[in-house]
Amino acid sequence: MKYTRRKFISVLGTGSAALVLPSIPKFAGNFFTVDKKLGIALVGLGNYAARQLAPSLQETSRCYLSGIVTGTPEKAEKWKSQYNIPDQNIYNYENFDSIAENKSIDVVYVVLPNSMHHEFVLKAAKAGKHVFCEKPMGISVKECEEMIEACKKAGVRLFVGYRLHSEPHHKAAMKFRTKDEAAIKYVHSEFAFKIGDPNQWRLKKSLAGGGAMMDLGIYAVQAARYSIGEEPVHVAAQEYKTDNKKFSEVDETILWQMEFPGGAASNSFTSYSSLANRFFISTEARWMELRPAFNYRGIKGRTDKGDMNLPEINQQAAQMDDFSKCIIDNLTSDASGEEGLKDLKVIEAIYRSIKTGKKEKV
Amino acid sequence: MKYTRRKFISVLGTGSAALVLPSIPKFAGNFFTVDKKLGIALVGLGNYAARQLAPSLQETSRCYLSGIVTGTPEKAEKWKSQYNIPDQNIYNYENFDSIAENKSIDVVYVVLPNSMHHEFVLKAAKAGKHVFCEKPMGISVKECEEMIEACKKAGVRLFVGYRLHSEPHHKAAMKFRTKDEAAIKYVHSEFAFKIGDPNQWRLKKSLAGGGAMMDLGIYAVQAARYSIGEEPVHVAAQEYKTDNKKFSEVDETILWQMEFPGGAASNSFTSYSSLANRFFISTEARWMELRPAFNYRGIKGRTDKGDMNLPEINQQAAQMDDFSKCIIDNLTSDASGEEGLKDLKVIEAIYRSIKTGKKEKV
Repeated sequence: MKYTRRKFISVLGTGSAALVLPSIPKFAGNFFTVDKKLGIALVGLGNYAARQLAPSLQETSRCYLSGIVTGTPEKAEKWKSQYNIPDQNIYNYENFDSIAENKSIDVVYVVLPNSMHHEFVLKAAKAGKHVFCEKPMGISVKECEEMIEACKKAGVRLFVGYRLHSEPHHKAAMKFRTKDEAAIKYVHSEFAFKIGDPNQWRLKKSLAGGGAMMDLGIYAVQAARYSIGEEPVHVAAQEYKTDNKKFSEVDETILWQMEFPGGAASNSFTSYSSLANRFFISTEARWMELRPAFNYRGIKGRTDKGDMNLPEINQQAAQMDDFSKCIIDNLTSDASGEEGLKDLKVIEAIYRSIKTGKKEKV
Repeated sequence: MKYTRRKFISVLGTGSAALVLPSIPKFAGNFFTVDKKLGIALVGLGNYAARQLAPSLQETSRCYLSGIVTGTPEKAEKWKSQYNIPDQNIYNYENFDSIAENKSIDVVYVVLPNSMHHEFVLKAAKAGKHVFCEKPMGISVKECEEMIEACKKAGVRLFVGYRLHSEPHHKAAMKFRTKDEAAIKYVHSEFAFKIGDPNQWRLKKSLAGGGAMMDLGIYAVQAARYSIGEEPVHVAAQEYKTDNKKFSEVDETILWQMEFPGGAASNSFTSYSSLANRFFISTEARWMELRPAFNYRGIKGRTDKGDMNLPEINQQAAQMDDFSKCIIDNLTSDASGEEGLKDLKVIEAIYRSIKTGKKEKV
């Protein structure tokens, strides 16, 4: 039996084409108000944009798919007809900068390979657009710092595509420590699956910046950080490789352990050649576990008291609505550029620890 | 809410006193045969002997409680009346060696604090008795090697109290890799609970030899080894301490990672101040998980195909019957002294890695 990324992470069908309404009149008391919807342009029309973001943008209430940026004319044609995108909202990488003049695009969502995030976030900021950027935010701490600085300077907001910040089970994990006023003492988080096509960009260092760690491990880093609610002090990490050909450029399997200032410990695992998808947290007396933990759909949770019975949602729709609401209502977000930067600090410490063979400060 | 060792590991009530029958006539065809039952003497009448082993010995079919060794006269009196133990089968630590002449004692089961295993296994072997020894077998590789050598020289069998080798879920874990002829790629095993009484022998280095690692971590080491079916090549380990007073002599929390020759990785955690009790194994496409994994009773398992629905058994009774059968029928056991030695080799490498801060060969 073969497992593909799609099979693992997603059980969502393709979205049906829908008439795009930039705003919906809403009856409020004795007059009609109009909820503002932000126009979003997707940059990079790969699998994630095509199978997850675009269909989800048919279900959002605070934003809608207003434009696309692609280097492939065939994709532009297909998307144009499928999602009723007007010609003037279709861009390629040569004319991208002219997006600045397009008033129907409020947000640029960068869904390109990891190493291109930095360039296009900077371009989007320069064009005066708010930015959603897929995870990992960048492939280095330096990149993330520059992206934050660029958005600050341009006066635009920056969010990282951490869909699980909008997911009910993970939101419960973030609050678990406060429920009994008990500290999280231990976190175990793991995310691994066998990667398919050996020629994909995720296995090329120049595009991905790293392997399983950058793509899947970042979820496990996130999980430890947001459940404990602190930044790790130290990290130790080990890299194992069983296929030197397939993983000649990027990491195949990494294990890492983190110490937190309040005394919590976390233990994590990521791999492109194993199968693992769980997130466990415990205080001295209580526990909560998610399995599967990091999928697009079908997350299930249980605690020492039984099944959590939380609803399954469209994570991508919820995420884009949450970010849009933050922009419209000028609210802060815990999935900001600063959050993305913090993860990259941990990831860089993990790679340092692998190199030195020793525990490293974050 | 306070959790004690007993509450976590056991849900078994105290055993009722039963008439001890050294052998049971069995009708087989047209004549009666007699199944041999081995007489077992428990050395050290602490909680585990009193609450688990003695009650379980009322349910065994290949062995029975024939004698006791205790330094406390009140315990001797209580056990004598509760289990109908004849006076001539009751020993103390001064007259222990005279057990050699007692024909109704076939096996000595050493249930003393860890650092006393070595001495009493050697004494038992010298007395010509087969030996069951609680885990950890000893507190060093050297001790284990001497124990194996002593039993070999004396011509007696040596078994380590690895109750989970007789437990259906763990037996399934040992066979999981062969089912689809797929190798285990990843194992996650963890065992932790908050230790109670700060004055107990388990927190004293001279008696316990180590802390959570020696007591609970050894289950996680075992689990990785028997599910993968190989010996680890390297181990990396980290020790965290949050209570320097309670854990002034022994380890509080240890995390460790192991590499196996076939390419599998394991990630483990043990602690005397956290809560964790799971065992997960996966091939590239299938997984199996136990939670709780290491309790005396109530182990539950599930795989990617659903609940395992395996029976709950009396682990200690099954273990002692399995060992007795090996002696009676002259069979090999995978819970032998050699198995105990292999775990201590891993544990010593873990402690070495903590000291050096580097990956260590096992």
